[in-house]
Amino acid sequence: MKNYVLTPGPVPVPEFVLLEMAKPIIHHRTEEFEEIFFKASQGLKKVFMTEEEVLILASSGTGAMDAAVCNTLSKKDKALVINGGKFGERWLKICKAYDVETEEIKVEWGKAVNPKEIEKVLKKHKDIKAILIQASETSTGVKHPIEEIALLTKDRSDIILIVDGITAVGAFPVEFDKWGIDVLIGGSQKAFMMPPGLAFIALSNKAWEFNKNSNLPKFYLDLSQAHKNSLKKTSPWTPAVTLIIGLNAVLNYFDKIGLDNLFRRHSILSEATTKGFEAIGLENFAKGCTSSALSVIKSPESIDAGVIVKELKNKYGMIVAGGQDQAKGKIFRITHMGYLDKADIIAVIAGVEGILIELGHKFKNGAGVATATKILNTL
Amino acid sequence: MKNYVLTPGPVPVPEFVLLEMAKPIIHHRTEEFEEIFFKASQGLKKVFMTEEEVLILASSGTGAMDAAVCNTLSKKDKALVINGGKFGERWLKICKAYDVETEEIKVEWGKAVNPKEIEKVLKKHKDIKAILIQASETSTGVKHPIEEIALLTKDRSDIILIVDGITAVGAFPVEFDKWGIDVLIGGSQKAFMMPPGLAFIALSNKAWEFNKNSNLPKFYLDLSQAHKNSLKKTSPWTPAVTLIIGLNAVLNYFDKIGLDNLFRRHSILSEATTKGFEAIGLENFAKGCTSSALSVIKSPESIDAGVIVKELKNKYGMIVAGGQDQAKGKIFRITHMGYLDKADIIAVIAGVEGILIELGHKFKNGAGVATATKILNTL
Repeated sequence: MKNYVLTPGPVPVPEFVLLEMAKPIIHHRTEEFEEIFFKASQGLKKVFMTEEEVLILASSGTGAMDAAVCNTLSKKDKALVINGGKFGERWLKICKAYDVETEEIKVEWGKAVNPKEIEKVLKKHKDIKAILIQASETSTGVKHPIEEIALLTKDRSDIILIVDGITAVGAFPVEFDKWGIDVLIGGSQKAFMMPPGLAFIALSNKAWEFNKNSNLPKFYLDLSQAHKNSLKKTSPWTPAVTLIIGLNAVLNYFDKIGLDNLFRRHSILSEATTKGFEAIGLENFAKGCTSSALSVIKSPESIDAGVIVKELKNKYGMIVAGGQDQAKGKIFRITHMGYLDKADIIAVIAGVEGILIELGHKFKNGAGVATATKILNTL
Repeated sequence: MKNYVLTPGPVPVPEFVLLEMAKPIIHHRTEEFEEIFFKASQGLKKVFMTEEEVLILASSGTGAMDAAVCNTLSKKDKALVINGGKFGERWLKICKAYDVETEEIKVEWGKAVNPKEIEKVLKKHKDIKAILIQASETSTGVKHPIEEIALLTKDRSDIILIVDGITAVGAFPVEFDKWGIDVLIGGSQKAFMMPPGLAFIALSNKAWEFNKNSNLPKFYLDLSQAHKNSLKKTSPWTPAVTLIIGLNAVLNYFDKIGLDNLFRRHSILSEATTKGFEAIGLENFAKGCTSSALSVIKSPESIDAGVIVKELKNKYGMIVAGGQDQAKGKIFRITHMGYLDKADIIAVIAGVEGILIELGHKFKNGAGVATATKILNTL
């Protein structure tokens, strides 16, 4: 059966990228590769919406999350973690590993944090040195209000805003320079429509100042080394050559279609998906704070979402993600990032409709596809 | 011009591996991928010559070197670093980053360490907790006597032997279990004939005991997490899916040709190269302690090795590596790892002969190719 990967990372990789990466290997210490590395860095700046250097790491996104902490903070520093899902939890674990103290704002899964709550905590704990948050929480589909939160930190020199944008950068605008973000992270297997294996990270001047005082040990993930080398069009350690060649091809493609159109595509796929499912009575788990990177849909009360995930695979070869931990069995998650288009969204809604019918669920059959198609036609 | 990558990493990747990696992406949390991950782990055990789990990291080899230190040692522990080249130096830098104290045995570039010297230092400093060494030092082409050195540590419970085998594992036998190595590291872009982006690491029971007491902070590189997940056929963070699929294809190929034959190929390519160059008066930089992973050849006194490297590229499209730091201009380095064979070795020797003639260097023209060909014919 033909497979359709529709998970929020890894996502479908364009054929032209796969073939570009299948070309004979080149050596990384050559002018040819340095040019590719440089172009990729420049292209990343556009997507990160910054004039700062965007560093390319050979690691998963978690490697860059680790680097964000150990390159800016020190032992016993206090950080405020916004925890509204699996990746918010990960910030807590990273801080713990480095003996960084944390205040936590627990956010109900499926809801966005209220910046006023952050303001309150910052007033109470004046020694908080960093806010750690997700721009888009992959486990819930929630988009946190980064622009508003940045207003709380941008004019203070004693606190930085660290944003995990792994499922956000490239999916929708995350304006590093304009909003005043201090650390922003992206990952190759998300909106960059690449295989996993690369992470990206940008630091503001303020974050580099923090870096000078950070006493947490680091070597492989030492961003000052990566920065120094990036300015010389290379990386301190052997870069993941083929992945960077693929990235460069993707960034060329972004240039060709235009970043606005890329964002618009995600946005329309997102609207079509959430509205389409709503038309058959399936709720948007992140209603009111939906990230356009992915749709997270609640299964009907009486149906285990795991069954939908399983049947989509068995019947149609469609791979979507289920829920994790407390959301297990309650939700399924569909990517809008990656090399996909209208037909994929129509197909997955039709697939779910088909499964619900077989399960004897009552709903207005066809309404999902009809609603989604109408919205998709605006693309 | 057609390019021939002959550098000791990255090395030529077989076409069947490149095409395998160019297939549509699959999701990592699926039975399909878990099976691939598991097979790759099992295949790695054979190459690492161990029954222990071999962990797969999404990082360059340096990431695994970092992990080797921060997962086994503690602050202010003392380590003995064998420093005979660029990668020996890297051990010192990693220890420094983690505030691990070091004793250093400086070894002349191009020479192997004498185990008796190590024995002497261990007698003097009974508090040394780890020996850090390269099995094959890529900057000099030297093979260090790991088997003999392991005799000094294997029966002691208070010291571990950490071996950077990045340019060794898969190139020649490095017998983890039999010799009693405690930590061994490999890298994808070397004898595994893959693009860079994966590192491999195995730990002995003794090393896992050290891990329990290690207080150095780690998160992304936390090997106990990687170990726990590896036993469940997965990795704690998103794995570099396509690279692992490629790795699996390589390991299948190793199975087909037989590990002994793989080692034998490197060994004969190495002998042919060093003897071939000797026949035209160019010395083996690592004479008497040659790693069969690569040949490091001294350029004639009067000729800058950089010119040979440059002209090989310009005239023949052959990419070999020059010397670094103190060896800059003095040596050039040719891989025997990767998807290459007799013709590549004949061609590079012929290329160097051609360049030396143009530079007016006097030697028995044709002797290099003739000598090498004779040896290669035993393959």
